[in-house]
Amino acid sequence: MYNSSNIIAYVIDAWQKLQQQTPLVQCITNSVAANYAANVLLAAGASPAMIDNPFEAESFTQISAALSINMGTPTSEQMQAMQISAQTANKQQIPWVLDPVGYGAILKWRSDMVDTLLQYHPAVIRGNASEISALAGNITQAKGVDSTLKSDDMFQLAQSLLSKTSCVAISGENDYILSNTMTCIVKIRGGSHLQPKITATGCALGALIAAYCAVAPVHIAAIAAHVHFAIAGKLAYDQAQTIGSFNTMFMDYIHMMDANLIQQYACIELISDD
Amino acid sequence: MYNSSNIIAYVIDAWQKLQQQTPLVQCITNSVAANYAANVLLAAGASPAMIDNPFEAESFTQISAALSINMGTPTSEQMQAMQISAQTANKQQIPWVLDPVGYGAILKWRSDMVDTLLQYHPAVIRGNASEISALAGNITQAKGVDSTLKSDDMFQLAQSLLSKTSCVAISGENDYILSNTMTCIVKIRGGSHLQPKITATGCALGALIAAYCAVAPVHIAAIAAHVHFAIAGKLAYDQAQTIGSFNTMFMDYIHMMDANLIQQYACIELISDD
Amino acid sequence: MYNSSNIIAYVIDAWQKLQQQTPLVQCITNSVAANYAANVLLAAGASPAMIDNPFEAESFTQISAALSINMGTPTSEQMQAMQISAQTANKQQIPWVLDPVGYGAILKWRSDMVDTLLQYHPAVIRGNASEISALAGNITQAKGVDSTLKSDDMFQLAQSLLSKTSCVAISGENDYILSNTMTCIVKIRGGSHLQPKITATGCALGALIAAYCAVAPVHIAAIAAHVHFAIAGKLAYDQAQTIGSFNTMFMDYIHMMDANLIQQYACIELISDD
Repeated sequence: MYNSSNIIAYVIDAWQKLQQQTPLVQCITNSVAANYAANVLLAAGASPAMIDNPFEAESFTQISAALSINMGTPTSEQMQAMQISAQTANKQQIPWVLDPVGYGAILKWRSDMVDTLLQYHPAVIRGNASEISALAGNITQAKGVDSTLKSDDMFQLAQSLLSKTSCVAISGENDYILSNTMTCIVKIRGGSHLQPKITATGCALGALIAAYCAVAPVHIAAIAAHVHFAIAGKLAYDQAQTIGSFNTMFMDYIHMMDANLIQQYACIELISDD
Repeated sequence: MYNSSNIIAYVIDAWQKLQQQTPLVQCITNSVAANYAANVLLAAGASPAMIDNPFEAESFTQISAALSINMGTPTSEQMQAMQISAQTANKQQIPWVLDPVGYGAILKWRSDMVDTLLQYHPAVIRGNASEISALAGNITQAKGVDSTLKSDDMFQLAQSLLSKTSCVAISGENDYILSNTMTCIVKIRGGSHLQPKITATGCALGALIAAYCAVAPVHIAAIAAHVHFAIAGKLAYDQAQTIGSFNTMFMDYIHMMDANLIQQYACIELISDD
Repeated sequence: MYNSSNIIAYVIDAWQKLQQQTPLVQCITNSVAANYAANVLLAAGASPAMIDNPFEAESFTQISAALSINMGTPTSEQMQAMQISAQTANKQQIPWVLDPVGYGAILKWRSDMVDTLLQYHPAVIRGNASEISALAGNITQAKGVDSTLKSDDMFQLAQSLLSKTSCVAISGENDYILSNTMTCIVKIRGGSHLQPKITATGCALGALIAAYCAVAPVHIAAIAAHVHFAIAGKLAYDQAQTIGSFNTMFMDYIHMMDANLIQQYACIELISDD
């Protein structure tokens, strides 16, 4: 049985494995997030590679330890690469994370591709409450690519997605992780209200989940990535309350994370799913 | 009649509306500016979305409060998206800003597209003196994408562009705003000599003009964005004279802007156009 | 005859010319590096332009003082632009730098393009030890786009590439520059172990080599760029040991470089090639 104490122990174990293994993580991501997500992965201990063309997608996914697919600003070539890489990952049992940025009726092209990609069994689907809600079939109130729904209201809807993925991660003021493996929902607190003011933090979080998937069970990977972000955000904000300096410190703490900080600052709560 | 005092009051009003409304701003921009412009818009109070594919351009522009089109590093798909989005914005009376980066004889492909886009009535054309001058029909001395002409020499040429747009904004050591609505030219001082040493600041400024266009009359929007940048640049440089730290502080002050700072630091001068 | 003392004098001379001439440098680079490389070039004194479409490549390369081609995340259009620009540069005797990111059997599409581009005589080929080794015909152990081979073991292999280029630059814990012009290999020490934890530093280094090629002989250009990076990395790390702050300070020192710092901190060693 899971409790917050043994989950934290699993998170620490995942973090340590990430440092030891520096897994190769293929990221097909957007033009806004490419640099930021690569830096977050490097700082966290992984080895990112932003291979996003259809001509190299298959052979590169085959040697990757995990794959992250993000729908931020897709091009036609990236769309082809996404499909090839997701298919390859599924075939080779390489865990992959789907971040359906902007999913909904307005952005039909990407939403259709997300629907297509779901057949390749993403290990984790991560998004904000609007995206997860829309993907779960709800008519959403998303404004552009930012969420207007609170994750607190939304996590039950997400349950229905567990037929298509092993794990659903909803980010917001509080984060929620749902998984086929756990009977409870894991709520993660922390971070800073400045994080949504910095672009691509959600996209980088998706890439970090993929990195953890390379070294830990899927649900632990999702929790570990969110805890990693939440602690780094909290500690950065303790030292820097302005947006530019906060961003610099945030990257510092992504890199300076260690077992003691996780033990001391992880805020995990288990919510019964009944 | 406008004077520097009531213009500052309008700028403060525009800034306040930006905070209240957090308008959705679609940006079709270049690979260098994507992350930076998104962060500037978030820090300033807007909600950016870098939707730049032709398959979602029409439906997304329709729900956007403003649109920013930047010619930095266009792809074929972005070019299609630009045309669709500009056309949609024009049809729906959504204000849009055109930043004709690198306009001139050398970069013919984008310059032809700029000429095409002009039929869709941009609310604001913004650029450095070389770009504005070339667009106004002058043979320019641009070196790559950076300006080699002084804005002071150039603003009269820009008048001729007011048949194609409501407002022309020229950035440089001093900034100049010309508009059909005002009989005078507005000169804005401030900023720091370090700003041209940081890439994509001009592109981010174009996106910020678009954000202000969603909440204020076009000429006030252009002035407000330049004032916002000029004050943030001045205050950042007061505290950090090195380029990396300046850039961090600049983002801080974009975010920390408020009515008092605008009142205290806005340097606006009205130049008679006669 | 070269010795470390006169090489440092040549590097200082190159740095001064870079400040005086601010050469226009065309960069065809990846989505991760675009912003970072542009900022490094601006901070170092050059004038970057990320023109990477095939429709403007020829005319823009013709007016550029140097060209940098980087294989990080190629698109089909960028691939066409690379070939056009490399061909144009070769025809016009404009120096260009090739950074064969990820060269090897796994990433065949780009590797084939690299092989094609070699016919256009790059002035410098730069990469990490894995890439240079693979390009020299060795079966490599690269993990994604990061090197797993030590540059120390590898520089002899690189000699064979001097039939295809004037200069080979290998970055790693120590950097090595080989050239047709020098009978010795130049080893450069410095930098910080944090640099490989920041994405796109290698890509930006390639762009900086191109900038120096516009103002100095090819082998001096390669040495100057590596010395510039090594000193900035060393001085930044002296002041900031965390990754985010280090990155900020690194950009500061790229910008604050001067003749005195080069004289005082350049660590150059000449290794006999026999």
